[in-house]
This record gives sequence, C-alpha cells and structure tokens, in this order.
Amino acid sequence: MNTYFDCIPCFLRQALSAARLISTDKKIHELVMRNVLRKTAEMDLNQPPPAMGRLIYQMIREISGNNDPYKPIKDKFNKFLLGLYPEFQKIILTADKPIEVAVRLAIAGNIIDFGVDSDIRTADIYDIVNQSITQDLVGSIEKFEHEVTAANKILYLGDNSGEIVFDRLLIEQLPREKITYAVRGYPVINDVTMDDADATGITGLVKVVDNGSDAPGTLLDQCSNEFCDIFSEADLIISKGQGNYESLSDTDKNIFFIFMVKCPVVAANTGHPKGSIVIMHNK
Amino acid sequence: MNTYFDCIPCFLRQALSAARLISTDKKIHELVMRNVLRKTAEMDLNQPPPAMGRLIYQMIREISGNNDPYKPIKDKFNKFLLGLYPEFQKIILTADKPIEVAVRLAIAGNIIDFGVDSDIRTADIYDIVNQSITQDLVGSIEKFEHEVTAANKILYLGDNSGEIVFDRLLIEQLPREKITYAVRGYPVINDVTMDDADATGITGLVKVVDNGSDAPGTLLDQCSNEFCDIFSEADLIISKGQGNYESLSDTDKNIFFIFMVKCPVVAANTGHPKGSIVIMHNK
Repeated sequence: MNTYFDCIPCFLRQALSAARLISTDKKIHELVMRNVLRKTAEMDLNQPPPAMGRLIYQMIREISGNNDPYKPIKDKFNKFLLGLYPEFQKIILTADKPIEVAVRLAIAGNIIDFGVDSDIRTADIYDIVNQSITQDLVGSIEKFEHEVTAANKILYLGDNSGEIVFDRLLIEQLPREKITYAVRGYPVINDVTMDDADATGITGLVKVVDNGSDAPGTLLDQCSNEFCDIFSEADLIISKGQGNYESLSDTDKNIFFIFMVKCPVVAANTGHPKGSIVIMHNK
Repeated sequence: MNTYFDCIPCFLRQALSAARLISTDKKIHELVMRNVLRKTAEMDLNQPPPAMGRLIYQMIREISGNNDPYKPIKDKFNKFLLGLYPEFQKIILTADKPIEVAVRLAIAGNIIDFGVDSDIRTADIYDIVNQSITQDLVGSIEKFEHEVTAANKILYLGDNSGEIVFDRLLIEQLPREKITYAVRGYPVINDVTMDDADATGITGLVKVVDNGSDAPGTLLDQCSNEFCDIFSEADLIISKGQGNYESLSDTDKNIFFIFMVKCPVVAANTGHPKGSIVIMHNK
C-alpha cells in the first residue's frame, strides 16, 4: 500500500517517541523532529509507510551514535515471553484445533506491542491471549492449512521481538522442513534480527535468513538478492504484522497476512475495523 | 506556554483535516501537507501553539482562495445553539447558584467541539451540559465572583462559534457595563469573529471589539494597538478555551481561564488531566 496522508502525523509521533528513547536532551529531540519534518516534506508517497520508517530510524541511529538503541527492550521482551512459552505450548498441544490456536497466539504476539516505556505484566499477556483466542478471526484457517499442505517452500516473515516467541509456537505446528524464517537485515525499532531468532530458538528449528534491509517491513527493492530469490521461489508466504502487510499488500504472491489491524489507515486499506485480527489471503 | 514537540503531530492532523474541508482533490491535500511540513520544520518553538495554527490556516485560505472556509459550519453551530438558548437560560435563572451554573454552561460550550464533519444532535448537547454541570470543577467560583465584583474593566476573550451562545448566557449573569467582549480580527478555523457576535446577540449586550489578529488564540504581539490597550487596561480577563490559554498562560495579568483540558500537552502544562473542566486563576 502507498503512504496515506494520515500516516504523516504518525511518523512524527513515532520519531518523537524514538528521540525520547535515545536521549533526555530536548536539543536532540528538536534536531530529530526538524530533520524528520524536512525528510517527510520531500517523501515519495507512492512508497509504503515502512520506507519512511526506515529513514526515521536511520536518523535515530545516526544522531544517537547507537546502532541498536532498542536492544535492551528487545532482549527484555524475548526473555519475558520465553518464560511463558511452555505454558502457551501446552495450550496449543491440548487444543482441539492446534493450528487455529497457534495462529491465534501468533496474533496475540502481534497484539503485544508494549511500547518502549511500558512495563510487561503477565496478567496483561493473559488478557491478550484470551482476547486473541475468543475474538472473531477474519479469514479462513482451513484455507491456510490447505495452502500449507500444498506448498513446497514456505517463507515466514517475522515482525517484532517478543512476538517472535509466538512465531516459534506456530512454526512448531507447521511442516518445519518447508519453512524459511526471515528477519530484518539490520536493527530497526524492535523488529526481529538474527539475534532474536537465535535467542528464541528459531534458528534451531528452521532455516533463518536475514532480508538484507533495515526497513521496518519488507521493501523488496531494498532487500538482498539472496532474500529476493527465496521470496520469489516460495510458493507460500506467511507474513506477520502490519509493517509486512504495508510493504507487500500489492504483491502478486500467495501470501497470508497475519496481524491485528492497529491503525485507521490499515483499517481503511483492508476494509476491516481497527482492532480486527486477521489471517488475510492476499487482498 | 511554548509549543511542545507533542504539538507537531497535532499540527499535521489539523492541517489534513482543513485540507479535506477545502477540497476533495488529493493534490491539494498533498500541497497543504508538504507546505505545513516545511513550515513546521522551521517554526519557532518558543511561540505558543496558536502561532503555528495561524500559519497553517493562512495557507489553507491562500490555497483554497476562500477567506472563510468554515463560514457555513460556524453559521450552522450558532443557529443550532441559539435554538437551545431559551432552555439553557431557564436552567441558569432557576438555579440556586446562577453564576456557577452559567460558568459550567460556558464550559459546556467549550466542550462542544464537533469537528467539521459531525452532525449536531440535541441529545449530545444535553449530555455535554449534564456532564459540565455535574463534573468536578477545578478552581473557585467564589474567587471568580469576588474578582468580578472588584473589577472595573473586564475583558472577555471569546473562543469558538456555537460556544459563543454559552458565552452570552454567562455574560448575562455578570455586570454587563464592565464588560468588553473580544473576537478574532479575521476568520480562522471556527473561531469567533464579529459576524458571530452579531449573529448571537452579543453586540447588543456588551461592547465588542476584534483583536486585529488572525491567530486561533490571543497572540498579543500580533493584535491591534486598540485591542492591546483594552487588554492592558482591563483589571480582569475572562479567557475562554484552550487557544487563549495557550497564548496567555505566561501573561502577568489577572486572568480566569475557563475551558476543558482537551489534549495531553495542556494536561501536562496545567497539571490537570485531559477531560478536566477548569476555571484557573492565572497559573
């Protein structure tokens, strides 16, 4: 999808939040905001929103001199959710429809988006898991299972740290030998990189590749040739999260987009209200 | 108060809303957004937020070629609330504490901020009036009454159309001969101008002046000399709405700010949570 005008205030909000993460110095906040305003004024609106996200977080890294300012947060989220992993695995293994429950938990992982300042509370996780198990799911699990069975090469596009633990739970219910799991090529916000795949045991489970890009999504024109080959050869793509949806919604591939609709722009684009949980087969 | 970094996403949101009001053409929306981004990138953050609001709505007027794009909305709101005026006047006249109820209704007027697309429904107005009558009011009505009695020259700063009908109800409970009512010098958003004072009968009630400025607030350095003299000579100022608070919160005058706290920035600045209704005596 293209960038909507409504995305612009959101870019500024995200930039401010990142600026406050890297520094308490208001001069730094001002520098970030003025730079992001200038860049946004010249941006190509035909690009999907993660293209601007990429520029913003490049700037955050440059100004902070820190290549991975979200590292402590990512580690905290992974560790915390790994602690709950056995419990959630049990829920899936004892369920009547393990794949449906695993998909719903994968969406729970996508709902968990604490923001950088938040404390993580176990009670909140339970609430979110309950919500994702009981809420109406837009899309067909049967179709998903059918496509998984029919596919030879499945590419699973990861999204955020923490959430990746729930990706592992879903992958465990799928034919692992078919699956390649993709992470971002470089740190950007709290998106998954190879470190997160290692820390959460995904690398021991399936082949993991990085996409060669530092965008918070999957912008194919900026991904490595190796990744583009894998993408092109895959006959099924499982795409987690809004950033991947925003990047790939217009792509002519066999894709299931699994995520919660988190903003009015994606609600308008998908036709599903904010808060919907979806497993959308292409558009 | 100064402009906070958190105001920046809000400027962009307001600009987009105004762009959509003046045109359905996406090229116009893009032109507005890019221009506002460039202007915001260079803005003086030591100015209060209405300074940037002024620049945004100047641009909206220029691009639309319409000096008063909100005119139909303003007329609609005035007419609608004038229709309810006798009913609300009765509530005040039969109250145990008419001035307190009139102040609370003046705040109800400030709560009513339909946005440009909304329908007005009588039931909503009743809800808002009920809320403003029952909700905790931050500040002292007794102090306000005392200052009104002690003052010789009272300057009442108006805020929005529609809301101005409730200003009239409050003014009717005050010593009219002391009062001058101020409107904006030029149309900006749905702020009150002389037209609104005429249409709602304020001009027949008290002296009305315009402040000579096209800012959605009271930026003294941009107001006319005539207005600045009246401001300076007033020994009590009744200031309605957030825009006037943002403009004058650091001013060393005897001011009661009457409004609802409508955003997190003003909540942080005043120390009162969003949604609070206040009659604040200076800071």
